[in-house]
Amino acid sequence: MADASQEPVTAGFVVIGDEILSGRTKDKNIGFLAEYLTALGVDLVEVRIVPDVRERIVEAVNALRAQYTYVFTSGGIGPTHDDITADSIAAAFGVSIDVDPRARAILEEHYGSPELLTPARLRMARIPAGADLIENAVSKAPGFRLENVHVMAGVPSIMQAMVDAIAPTLKTGAKMLSRTLDADLPESRLAEQLGRIQDANPQTLIGSYPRSTDGRFTTQIVVRSRSEHDLNTAADAVVTAIRDAQART
Amino acid sequence: MADASQEPVTAGFVVIGDEILSGRTKDKNIGFLAEYLTALGVDLVEVRIVPDVRERIVEAVNALRAQYTYVFTSGGIGPTHDDITADSIAAAFGVSIDVDPRARAILEEHYGSPELLTPARLRMARIPAGADLIENAVSKAPGFRLENVHVMAGVPSIMQAMVDAIAPTLKTGAKMLSRTLDADLPESRLAEQLGRIQDANPQTLIGSYPRSTDGRFTTQIVVRSRSEHDLNTAADAVVTAIRDAQART
Repeated sequence: MADASQEPVTAGFVVIGDEILSGRTKDKNIGFLAEYLTALGVDLVEVRIVPDVRERIVEAVNALRAQYTYVFTSGGIGPTHDDITADSIAAAFGVSIDVDPRARAILEEHYGSPELLTPARLRMARIPAGADLIENAVSKAPGFRLENVHVMAGVPSIMQAMVDAIAPTLKTGAKMLSRTLDADLPESRLAEQLGRIQDANPQTLIGSYPRSTDGRFTTQIVVRSRSEHDLNTAADAVVTAIRDAQART
Repeated sequence: MADASQEPVTAGFVVIGDEILSGRTKDKNIGFLAEYLTALGVDLVEVRIVPDVRERIVEAVNALRAQYTYVFTSGGIGPTHDDITADSIAAAFGVSIDVDPRARAILEEHYGSPELLTPARLRMARIPAGADLIENAVSKAPGFRLENVHVMAGVPSIMQAMVDAIAPTLKTGAKMLSRTLDADLPESRLAEQLGRIQDANPQTLIGSYPRSTDGRFTTQIVVRSRSEHDLNTAADAVVTAIRDAQART
């Protein structure tokens, strides 16, 4: 990590693709990136899924890059006509876009001969002016970073390799610590006590997550804080509340 | 379906919950709703995932309800302190919110006696003024609809039951038809032909989705159109393009 300050470092994620919105493809990148950023100490604050439409991509990227430390995008950087992410990012930043010599060299080496670098494949070397490349260890065609926006592939194996390439360049905040507590009770049996514990521990975030398994309702309580001391104080209070509620059963 | 016009009917979806953004819970509702709406003939155009923060919920719901025929939300309608969706929706619409007698009656019947309807559980009967209830066949605490916004639970089994309850009330557009064609080729081998077919068939949407299985790259092409004739014309052209590209292998 380049830095580990106490300032929260935030992120937004734009998932680009008609196939996610039609339900044909089930997204796997959101859960992966969310977990990865949490582990790094970067708070993912917002995700937007938008279609393969330039104006929608521009709108989402511009909204998020103004608000968060980092923006990530996935999807739409392949060789086909519906891969419009690179051009959309250039439009979002108001910069030009053309075949990038560094990206072209990577693809030439990958395909082995200039003849195999067809016009369609060469589309994958179109990179907005001023961007750095992001290595693609899986299939070579690179992603890119322009200012705080990281543009990645949508295929999960490639996207994950790109996140690994990006991670060392990110500054990270104080890591959010968490403790998960299981209660064999429906959440309404704990709700009042949890509300009181949250009020008494404002430096923590207490989440209550009802679950239904085979028609039986149980609850997971997750206490989060950047301070271990605050985390323990609140989590201990939750443990007591669960014990008390179970004793009343 | 209340109606089946030729006008596209659109939707936005707001997923509410810190647990999705931290990666602790992997969302299952987006893929479900996307597929369900596609089957109904409703186009899901945008999804936003936002944290359990009132201002963020209000902002997302107001942005989407102004743009799309319908908005759906999931999450944050349980009995605990972090369940702030109902209050946030009331704030988004600028209406009051209080315990709703219809929702209270459902919960009273469910819990069997007024004493079991604790203040925490009664929170689940807080419904914004002017809203209709959405039946919860699984655990009774209802969702609600206010104008074009449908507020549902986040637990997938409950959310799915609520979608079933909502579906008959939705107007639907001409259904988007689709054909999926598999090509045992990387997409760069098809990209130029697909671009030409897309240009020649503007009434269709042609998506190209690269896949990586055991390091081997293949492509799925999905042709979509509201017209069966246009769909067949474009899909037949794609089949020919795949055959030609494979013959050149």
